[in-house]
Amino acid sequence: MRDVADDLRVAHILADAARSVTRPYFRSAVLGTSNKSTSGFDPVTQADKDAEYVMREILALERPDDAILGEEQGHTPGDSGYTWVIDPIDGTRAFLCGSPTWGVLVALNAGAKPYLGLFEQPFTQERFIGIAGQDTVWTQTSLRGDVQKKVMQTRDCKAIKDAVLLTTFPEIGTPQEAKAFHCVRDQVKITRYGLDCYAYGLLAMGQVDLVIEAGLQPYDIQALIPIIEAAGGLVTNWQGGDCHDGGQVLAAGNADLHAQAMTLLAA
Amino acid sequence: MRDVADDLRVAHILADAARSVTRPYFRSAVLGTSNKSTSGFDPVTQADKDAEYVMREILALERPDDAILGEEQGHTPGDSGYTWVIDPIDGTRAFLCGSPTWGVLVALNAGAKPYLGLFEQPFTQERFIGIAGQDTVWTQTSLRGDVQKKVMQTRDCKAIKDAVLLTTFPEIGTPQEAKAFHCVRDQVKITRYGLDCYAYGLLAMGQVDLVIEAGLQPYDIQALIPIIEAAGGLVTNWQGGDCHDGGQVLAAGNADLHAQAMTLLAA
Repeated sequence: MRDVADDLRVAHILADAARSVTRPYFRSAVLGTSNKSTSGFDPVTQADKDAEYVMREILALERPDDAILGEEQGHTPGDSGYTWVIDPIDGTRAFLCGSPTWGVLVALNAGAKPYLGLFEQPFTQERFIGIAGQDTVWTQTSLRGDVQKKVMQTRDCKAIKDAVLLTTFPEIGTPQEAKAFHCVRDQVKITRYGLDCYAYGLLAMGQVDLVIEAGLQPYDIQALIPIIEAAGGLVTNWQGGDCHDGGQVLAAGNADLHAQAMTLLAA
Repeated sequence: MRDVADDLRVAHILADAARSVTRPYFRSAVLGTSNKSTSGFDPVTQADKDAEYVMREILALERPDDAILGEEQGHTPGDSGYTWVIDPIDGTRAFLCGSPTWGVLVALNAGAKPYLGLFEQPFTQERFIGIAGQDTVWTQTSLRGDVQKKVMQTRDCKAIKDAVLLTTFPEIGTPQEAKAFHCVRDQVKITRYGLDCYAYGLLAMGQVDLVIEAGLQPYDIQALIPIIEAAGGLVTNWQGGDCHDGGQVLAAGNADLHAQAMTLLAA
């Protein structure tokens, strides 16, 4: 049996380290950006690489028996049945633009699903924490170190016409996926773009009602699942199944809205 | 002859007041949102109204002879030939979503053009200040009151293929305007959406290279003009003329890139 409090302690150490490593790079002239795609532009910066390196060093000391799945260095096997799923910078494009909406993502997956998730925004110093069966907590640390803390809860907007919808890229995914997305977009009150992981934090906070994306990787979404679920929301693929492996994601503040959006995506 | 330092003092008082008024509403349950459009959804919140009210009260005391143009209460005439152009919340949709990229905009227009501009982001406590012929300054105040300060400068990315482009809405404006925008979007390295006034702050900071929008109002852009110009950038309409009256806006970090983007917009 795992000690959840001790896993949370390790998650905080990982986020603290990633905050310390990434923040000096943010808005600096020495990002060390390179392209890791052979067919397009998929940016990675020195900040991504350094942060994942440091997070892996911490896990090697603190959790030598757990596996690791990270965006930059891939999969490292383990014997415990538990996997840390980490993305040192989710939203590298936002990071490159100086926009304060990227984040460090840390999930702990027990095999079947992630049961602990953490999303850290180093510039605003916000941290969103979710653990299955516990309150979802948002914290903000001032530059001098004092901490504000709030329990998060999704909101109960039940009608698609009143909903606020977020996604990252207007092109969404394939043309078919974009068409399905437009069926939801055309019904909601407000659609906004460009927020990456921050969108899911705002959903958990009860600030928005829906987040819809496609083409995600496991490390893009796993940390956000416990945060949203513990706050009262739902996160699935577009058919209502698990989205731990990435791909299409539909996150909603409540079951009614989730069902309406799923129907529109399938139309 | 105006005392520029004293005008800047007044601009700071306006921004301080707007920060105090808007911040408690941000991410609160009592936004008091209503729709001021008869043909669509143009949100206004109690925070917009309260902030403009307080800013106008301050101007009535500090600058009784100046005119005021504000988003929520329109035009108030004056005798001095100077107009304060204010938008209590630029990016009301971002504000409604809980995204930290909206802003308070304050410009002082000397008749021909704005010569002082200020953009305040109350959540991150960043303030961007530009005055014709002076350094453009960025500040960030910690929650305990200490202030970081940097001189801003646009960057010298000269090739459209290396440029980072920002805009707010993917639909841009009319279908013709969207088509022209796509001519630029298809050439740049990265395009990002959803940042409102924050996009122009990032341009002045040298984090991005181009901001292109259409359908703006005078109070959406006037405060940002002195900030970008004093940081070394250019802000015009899509034909290279003045954009003080809003409409189409093309902002670039340098003249070479501005010319290339203007050519593509006209193609």
